This record gives sequence, structure tokens and C-alpha cells, in this order.
Amino acid sequence: MARERVTSFDVAREAGVSQSAVSRAYTPGASIAKATKEKVLAAALKLGYQPNAIARSLISRRSNMIGIVMADIVNPFYPAVLDMFLRQLQERGHRVMLFMATRGQTIDDLLPQLLEYQVDGVVITSSTLSSEMAEHCARLGTPVALFNRYVANVEASSVCCDNIGAGRAVADLLLDAGHQQLGYIAGIENTSTNKDREYGFSSRIEERRAKPMRREVGNYTYEDGYQAALRLFEASPTPDAIFCANDIMALGALDALRGPLKLRVPEDVSVIGFDDISASSWQGYRLTSIRLPVERMVETTINHLIERIENPDTPLLATLESIELAIRDSARLPEHIGLYHTWEKVD
Amino acid sequence: MARERVTSFDVAREAGVSQSAVSRAYTPGASIAKATKEKVLAAALKLGYQPNAIARSLISRRSNMIGIVMADIVNPFYPAVLDMFLRQLQERGHRVMLFMATRGQTIDDLLPQLLEYQVDGVVITSSTLSSEMAEHCARLGTPVALFNRYVANVEASSVCCDNIGAGRAVADLLLDAGHQQLGYIAGIENTSTNKDREYGFSSRIEERRAKPMRREVGNYTYEDGYQAALRLFEASPTPDAIFCANDIMALGALDALRGPLKLRVPEDVSVIGFDDISASSWQGYRLTSIRLPVERMVETTINHLIERIENPDTPLLATLESIELAIRDSARLPEHIGLYHTWEKVD
Repeated sequence: MARERVTSFDVAREAGVSQSAVSRAYTPGASIAKATKEKVLAAALKLGYQPNAIARSLISRRSNMIGIVMADIVNPFYPAVLDMFLRQLQERGHRVMLFMATRGQTIDDLLPQLLEYQVDGVVITSSTLSSEMAEHCARLGTPVALFNRYVANVEASSVCCDNIGAGRAVADLLLDAGHQQLGYIAGIENTSTNKDREYGFSSRIEERRAKPMRREVGNYTYEDGYQAALRLFEASPTPDAIFCANDIMALGALDALRGPLKLRVPEDVSVIGFDDISASSWQGYRLTSIRLPVERMVETTINHLIERIENPDTPLLATLESIELAIRDSARLPEHIGLYHTWEKVD
Repeated sequence: MARERVTSFDVAREAGVSQSAVSRAYTPGASIAKATKEKVLAAALKLGYQPNAIARSLISRRSNMIGIVMADIVNPFYPAVLDMFLRQLQERGHRVMLFMATRGQTIDDLLPQLLEYQVDGVVITSSTLSSEMAEHCARLGTPVALFNRYVANVEASSVCCDNIGAGRAVADLLLDAGHQQLGYIAGIENTSTNKDREYGFSSRIEERRAKPMRREVGNYTYEDGYQAALRLFEASPTPDAIFCANDIMALGALDALRGPLKLRVPEDVSVIGFDDISASSWQGYRLTSIRLPVERMVETTINHLIERIENPDTPLLATLESIELAIRDSARLPEHIGLYHTWEKVD
């Protein structure tokens, strides 16, 4: 079981370079000629040399690891987000420790496990954070950023989009286009994303004194979205437009409308989703959907975390990004879409 | 910047428990009463105590981290796989360091970065491995398992499914059902999954002296699968059945067939995919597809890795799991499907 300890000096001798060149070959972003680096790596491979980032991190107090906590990587919105985080973090020489919050597990249960590994920072995409745990992270000097989530009065940064504003804007769009009875398919009910989208949508309907919205729950899944759409048509008044709190449910709703309900979209019923996942642009669906500026949100989150890691005095960040409308074929829209100046037309 | 060092003794005193209870509260799987653990965690939170897994790993030579390398987490097959790995590894107290191989990056570039973090084992889902790098891992005592991939003559384990056998079986199924001209939509051409599925399919067509297959490339994406299906119908002989090397391309092909090509599925053209992703069961598609026993493959991979971590003399593993057919509505099949005894009918 004893592993022979090959040192960086052995590698330097074998490669015919300085020990500092060996060190630079293993430092992300360090300046070193490509040919030299290749010589070092070949010598390392030959001798079985492997530098130890763990031992290094005990001295530097930087692990170069960022922890990411997700809850639902099967919903296609999150793999796309994770993909962007991984690409951008790896490009900058950071490693990713990924944690999944399973149902019933709170972030307060999971965070200590990440912190044990001395991650330099944490991104939470899944859930909120207690103020005790946020304080614990702050005391350890580990910055935390909530992605697409926010919590009031907690020592954590938040990069979020304007979910309430989006809900309001969708209500305006659908009412301005002449729809009479709006319906809403809710996601998982206690999530902040669902609560905010629903609050914006329903409160705007009330403000405009339109008919109260009909509502069913789709739990952010295709199957439940499909069933929720069927239920919306079991009793009158049936909706002539449905806003779904995410795209996966909207795709289920589209299949229910065109399939067993034999309704035309958008002639009989308009459907608008949220997230603009790639399946929404598939020819079989062509769903009109709310698009978050995900790439920019990921970049903002990473920039801010790195800034706080390097300078702990950096103030907390709370951004509320505006969203866009990806216009396809599933909804009747008002003629003067130009009024909604934050919308952008896509494909 | 100095972080106060709170020790496990401070926490034990605060919680009114022994120091060994504090230690057990932070050891995954250790025996400790729930009430005691809660007392310890509350005291730790109050004092700002955080155990250091990194320092511990330098002593124990176990980091409890497993590295996973993926290439394509946007294709919905891989998030489902990652989800299973995360759940099963976390349940056993392991942490996951996730790496993404971007285009042009070989596993030989990435592995040293994982090894720097002293991961206990590595799962590679994306690509093959040079024999030099496999030897390097073996020398360090870090077991490597290829998931859904294999490489001959390399010191790594492999948990794979029978892609060649699946290709042969699909050719048999389609020819036995009376199809005359088979088509194939290929994935990324240099991947082992695509090569094996194609080899099995085309060689079986030849053996049975059926008409040579028509072939287009769909690069494992929806858009390219859609375009590949259009190209298959630009020249005769046009196919009356298409086997797609993954489901995402098959969904694109279905939309091209039913949309611009105005063909009926399966009356005019049968379509069979591979992977059985969740979108294939959506009512708008109902794709017949090859299903891998993913849950079992993930479990086998983890069991084997852990066994090799605990006992380095454990021999390498090479499994070739048989696959199943998820029968839905997109393909005409022979009457006596019972002949294909490895197939299993689903929903």
C-alpha cells in the first residue's frame, strides 16, 4: 500500500527544467511555455508524480473548490445552468464539488458537509438558507450566493430574476391580447419561484379587475402539468389562456390540450411557459416562454463570489435581472408587443 | 482575517457530551443518537465550529471524494445518470467532485486535475482513457471505472451495456416486422457508443442480406437529428424504418417526419431510439426506445469502486449489461415479440 513519494525535484531533473517550472505547470493560469508544460507532464506521468492540492490548500487556505447545491437536475433547466457554472468555473481554474438536496433535506443539513471540505465559496440553486447557517458561513469567511433565489435579512448574496414582475407582465400580455379567463399551473407550492410568479400573475389580474384566475398544481413536472391541464377543463369557467410556472409543465399542458382535450393552440387556448428550456423550441412544441438571462446570471454569480473570496470586505450583492419573452407559436399576443420594452423576440 | 480555532473539545463542553460524540456526529454512517447529534450540531453552530475533512484526509489518505467526469450534461440521458450517482454516493457518505470535459479536452488533460484533489476513485462517463493515464492512476492506487464505455487492454474497470448486441437486435426486430429499407441516424461519429450501435445494426443487415442501410449523421442533438431525417428523404431509396443512436435525435426525426415530410409514424415509417429518456414517454412522442438498466449500472459501478478503494487487490471488472426495449407507439414490431427474450414491455 505504500505509495512511493516522487517529488517535484525528481520531475524537474527528469524533464530537464527548473523546479519552479514544475510548480507552474500545475498552477492554473500560471505563465509557462506549452512545450515546457508538456515536458513536465510527460516526466510526471513517467515517474508517477502527482501534486497534492489538498496539502497545498491547508497552507494557502484556498481549496480552489466551489460548492454547488442543486435540488432537481432532472428538470432540464438545471443541467443547462450546471453546464454553464462548470464551464465558467473550470476555465478560471476552479473545481466544483456538487451536492444534491434530496426531498426533505434542507440546505442547513447539507452546508456543513460542504464546509468540511473547505470550499472557497458556495452557490445554492435549490432552496433558501436560515439566518443561523448564513452567519456560520460568514464567520468561517465562506461567501454564499443564492442563484435564482433570495432570502430577506440573511447574510448571503442573491442573483435573481424578477419573478413577480414576470408574472405581472404575463398577465398584462394575455389580457391585452383579449383573453377573458386566465388559468395558472403552479409549480412546487412552497418554492419562492412559484410563489413569486403566482403572486405577480394573480395580483395583476385582480388589479385589472379581470375574472379571477383558475388554478391547478403541476409540481414542476411534465406528468403533473399534463394532469393539471386536464383538470382545468373539467369545470367551467374553462380558461382561454394558461400561464405555467415552468416549461416542462407547459409541454405537458400542450400535449393534454392538443391530445385528449382536442383544442387548438393558440386559437382556442394560449399557453405561456417559464425558463425557455431547449425542448420548448422543438418543432413539436414551439412554446412561447419567459427566458431568464441565465448566462449573465451565472457570470454575475461567479464574478461576485470570486471577488468576495479575494476581498472579504466586498459588500453583499442582490440583483434582480429583468427577463425576456421567447416568442414562438403557442400564445396569441397583443399587436403592440413593443410596449413591453423588456421583451425580446427570439427565433 | 484570522479565523478563531474552535475545537471539538469546546463543542463537547458546550453540548454537554463527550468529545467522541462530537467526532461521531461528523462521521458519515457512525452510530449516534439523533438527539445527541442535534445537540452537537447546535453547539457547533453556536460556537462556529467546523471540522476539516481536508486535514483529516491527509492523515487517513481517504478524501471520501469520488471524481465524476462527464462531457454532455445537456443531453437528458446524462443528468439522469448524474442524479443517480449523486443520490447513491451521498447516501453512502461520499462527496462528488464533478468535471466536465469540453470539446477538444481529452480525459488525459482532465484526470491530473482530479487526482490533485486526492479523490478516492474516478468515474468516467464521457470518453476513453489512454493506457499511460490508466497506469498512472493504478500507480497512485486510484481506481477508475468507465461508465457506458470500455477500452481494451487498459487498467480500468468498465460497466457497459451491449451496444453491438442492441444494434443487431434492432435490425432483427425491424426486418422481422417486414420493413424493407432501413435507415440509421448516427450520433457523434468517433464515440464508442455510436460505433458499436452502428456496427451491430449494419452488420446484422448485411448478414441477413437485406438492402444496405441508408445513413445520415445527427451528432446526438435534436436539431441535427431533425435535419438528418429530412436528408434521408431527399433521395431514394427512402427508408421505411429509422434506428437513431439516441433518443434526442429520434425526437427530432419524429418532428421532421410528422411535420414537413407529412409522413405517418409508424404506418409509413417506424422509428426506434436509444436511451429511453423521460421525454420519450411524453404523449406528443411516445417513442419506442432501447432502455439501459441505468440504475443497476450506477449501483454496480459504485459498489465496485468502493470495493477497490477498500481492497486494492479486487480484480478489475468488465460487465456488459443486456438492454431492454421500451415499447411505445413509434415502431411496427413483429407479432412474436416474445422471441426477443431480453426485451421487456413497458408502459
